[in-house]
Amino acid sequence: MGEEGENLKETFSEISPSDFFYRNRDLAGFTNPSRALYSTVRELVENSLDACEIERIPPEIYTRITPFDPSENEDPRKYLVRVQDNGPGVAPDYIAEAFGKVLYGSKYKLRQSRGMFGLGGTMAILYGQITSNKPVKIQTSTDGIKKYSLTLMIDIEKNKPIILDKKVDDARKIKGTVVEVVVEGDYLRSSQKIQEYFKQTALVVPYANITFVDPMGRIYNYLMTTQEMPPPPKETLPHPYGIDVEFMRRMIRQSKELTLSKFMPKRFHRVGAKTAIKFLQFAGLDPNRDPKSLTDEEIVNLVSSMHKFEEFLPPDANCLSPLGEKIFSAGIIKELAPEFFTVVVRPPSAYSGFPFIVELALAYGGRQLDKGIKLYRYANRIPLLYDEASDVAWKVINEEIDWKRYKIPLEAPIAVVVNISSTRIPYKTVGKEYIADRPEIERELKNALRETLRKLSAYLSRRTSEEHEKRKINLYMKYLPLIAGFAKELAGENKPPNYKRLLEQSREEAVEEEKVNVSEEGRKGEGQKTIEDFANS
Amino acid sequence: MGEEGENLKETFSEISPSDFFYRNRDLAGFTNPSRALYSTVRELVENSLDACEIERIPPEIYTRITPFDPSENEDPRKYLVRVQDNGPGVAPDYIAEAFGKVLYGSKYKLRQSRGMFGLGGTMAILYGQITSNKPVKIQTSTDGIKKYSLTLMIDIEKNKPIILDKKVDDARKIKGTVVEVVVEGDYLRSSQKIQEYFKQTALVVPYANITFVDPMGRIYNYLMTTQEMPPPPKETLPHPYGIDVEFMRRMIRQSKELTLSKFMPKRFHRVGAKTAIKFLQFAGLDPNRDPKSLTDEEIVNLVSSMHKFEEFLPPDANCLSPLGEKIFSAGIIKELAPEFFTVVVRPPSAYSGFPFIVELALAYGGRQLDKGIKLYRYANRIPLLYDEASDVAWKVINEEIDWKRYKIPLEAPIAVVVNISSTRIPYKTVGKEYIADRPEIERELKNALRETLRKLSAYLSRRTSEEHEKRKINLYMKYLPLIAGFAKELAGENKPPNYKRLLEQSREEAVEEEKVNVSEEGRKGEGQKTIEDFANS
Repeated sequence: MGEEGENLKETFSEISPSDFFYRNRDLAGFTNPSRALYSTVRELVENSLDACEIERIPPEIYTRITPFDPSENEDPRKYLVRVQDNGPGVAPDYIAEAFGKVLYGSKYKLRQSRGMFGLGGTMAILYGQITSNKPVKIQTSTDGIKKYSLTLMIDIEKNKPIILDKKVDDARKIKGTVVEVVVEGDYLRSSQKIQEYFKQTALVVPYANITFVDPMGRIYNYLMTTQEMPPPPKETLPHPYGIDVEFMRRMIRQSKELTLSKFMPKRFHRVGAKTAIKFLQFAGLDPNRDPKSLTDEEIVNLVSSMHKFEEFLPPDANCLSPLGEKIFSAGIIKELAPEFFTVVVRPPSAYSGFPFIVELALAYGGRQLDKGIKLYRYANRIPLLYDEASDVAWKVINEEIDWKRYKIPLEAPIAVVVNISSTRIPYKTVGKEYIADRPEIERELKNALRETLRKLSAYLSRRTSEEHEKRKINLYMKYLPLIAGFAKELAGENKPPNYKRLLEQSREEAVEEEKVNVSEEGRKGEGQKTIEDFANS
Repeated sequence: MGEEGENLKETFSEISPSDFFYRNRDLAGFTNPSRALYSTVRELVENSLDACEIERIPPEIYTRITPFDPSENEDPRKYLVRVQDNGPGVAPDYIAEAFGKVLYGSKYKLRQSRGMFGLGGTMAILYGQITSNKPVKIQTSTDGIKKYSLTLMIDIEKNKPIILDKKVDDARKIKGTVVEVVVEGDYLRSSQKIQEYFKQTALVVPYANITFVDPMGRIYNYLMTTQEMPPPPKETLPHPYGIDVEFMRRMIRQSKELTLSKFMPKRFHRVGAKTAIKFLQFAGLDPNRDPKSLTDEEIVNLVSSMHKFEEFLPPDANCLSPLGEKIFSAGIIKELAPEFFTVVVRPPSAYSGFPFIVELALAYGGRQLDKGIKLYRYANRIPLLYDEASDVAWKVINEEIDWKRYKIPLEAPIAVVVNISSTRIPYKTVGKEYIADRPEIERELKNALRETLRKLSAYLSRRTSEEHEKRKINLYMKYLPLIAGFAKELAGENKPPNYKRLLEQSREEAVEEEKVNVSEEGRKGEGQKTIEDFANS
């Protein structure tokens, strides 16, 4: 102990971004062997799904977790995680840095994708390296002709890849990428979450074939049930409401436009030539000014005027890739098989200049749902499995909705499935555990949930009155023949009165009544479906 | 729209750490003008407190928030935030980078401090710059002779400071640092949190003078009530249980020791010469080997043996700086003035090789506490004000403790104050909102809370029986004279019987009974105090 803590003079030092995330790996979801195994699988699978979807290739993802060292027979231990996809591959020039450098990637764009921080895949590799000391192996082909195989480690202090081995083979017509990493993991304690991750992923990508082989060799297959894929997300220009001074400076530096009136429509989302002129007038700037001639003061003024001007059109959600009702429904049926479900796709909205769309499905009953409300959360199609109680959707369900109003029985078996799509999901952690409660998102979630609850409420009351009618008619069926028999005897007639006509009539009335109920309570109910409806559509 | 989203070929790029946190400022608590103003104040004040405490200077911290631009009269608007301290100052060579570079700082050590990521202060400056385009101004003196004044901005893309102005003046015997930053903020929406932050900070630093001047010029003073400061935290060596392969490699690279038997005691915490030999035997390594001669395989083996060897002593908490019972009590009395309180300082413990100490105070009653349980959370003396429901302490209070067992009335006015000290607090977010539920920390919290609850329970039952006795005696006092009077009349006596002696006796018995109760229920009650006890001690 003698030498510890003697030097109290402050010394300063710099660390690389690799080093920062190495030291603070809890931040990115690599807290312990159990959580880290889950995060490794998730980050690699998500990179694969992103890569396939951007090129509109129906994803075929194969994931395998194998014990790495046969002499270890207890968790935590070293596992080989292998994730293979049929995506577009990584171009040879980028391979080493894409996998071996933190804060390097293809995600630094205004485009919807699962990844956002450009960090996860490299974190998995970094975590593997520090716990197993094994390099990562990457095989990738962009053309099906040449396959590049690299073995590399990360120089954490310098934040750069060290290539240990590199070769080029015949790709044998197979495109895509295979990543193999050895990590210290705890499958015993993470199996439930990993299986839940695949199950929930399958729910929102019914257009993918996903195979998972667990360490015991058990195979979990999630098969494609629809050929249809959502439109791929597109890169978009920044909206004026989301701009800050730093960003404006960069735009001006890159700008080739010689006047503000040309600069505005060219560089910003939803700014046409007319709006540009109107806005520049509002900001008190000459439309013919060269953007590069603006002083610091003028740039600040330009940006704050942008936030105040009320005539910009809201962000367009065309660049987003929501699931859509059809694919979402297919996923719900495939994974939850409920008695009743309804899907709401809300109109696009925006927060701080970033467009987003909320999609919400409410499922009820069936064999798979347990009693109570289960929340499934997705952000850009990533299932979020941790820290549920901090998420905006949890807040809406538990604090903002008056469930009694909808007369839904306590303990009803219900699933609420939420998917938020955005060019920028407001996560509060690098590990992408939960979504901040931006008021705009909260409002959309609330509206979506209310809409689906009204439909479920209508369905349940219809079902109740149907059951009531059925019981009534059953009662008639039982007693009318007897009453008719007594009547016949009392009247000394040979034939009983025609009670069958009465039964028919009751049935018809019940159905009529029901129709009125549905059209009153289910006015906005075009989207509501039962499994049968869907099968017939 | 025409040009958006056409380019689907993946392009890769690198961003600087400044740029990463600029893009993802939500991660560090700079989500919106309200939250960002709070974070700015907090980060600068915490840097000042850390600097003072490390040199054991009783902190004098002066914070002022002033509207910056008189023409703006509505929130959000630009505010000048000025934080001044009497700390040791920053040495001239480090000033520019300490304030103008992300991932550069004095916190990358194994030492307890409020800051952990070396990020907060620079984030406040970065946020100020992107929202106001104003540079930060820093004045600092380490010796009271020369004062260095710098005006600087951050080149975010390159992650380096740009010095706009620099001068040296006479410091006029004043040491310390002043930081002035202009940020877009929303005081209207953050005032409650900012005031709460100062109030809660004052509770755990009763040895500091803290002044806060709000934008309306109102002055909040939190005065020093004790001269005593906790021992300063010390830098420590890493414990073998917290080592990974990457870390071991770095240690070996820096090592000047020529044999493993010297390397182990010199570089690791709680490893003496004998333990080193025993361990190396366990790991199957020759004690005379040169650390630099180890192969990759041997390094991996060395590290995994370290995690398995059971004879290392647990981490020593001498390097930590807990509050201690006396200072903690002073803070509780000063800020909560409860009817009853009790403080528990748990013995040191450790998770993943990092030592930690849990201190917990339970306060009851008094004029300031409202009905119900209020949780105050501190980590290395930082008050944590956001995301309470995700914190391990919240989990313990709400899910792990059977409150009924302690017979504490529903809605009793209670405060639970938790302070966790560690060389490494397991935060789950860069914004330091809450602490992960490491099982070791959970266990210590549970034990501490139970201990204090037993004492509160004993106090309440004592109070109840005292009240019961008081009521009984009051009843006697009221009726005994009457009964005595009747008795006198009935007996035809002149003098009533001596009922006053009876009353005395009852009182004495009640007190005796009470003493027994206390010594039975309050066996471990040495630490329990009422305000009066404390005032007399």
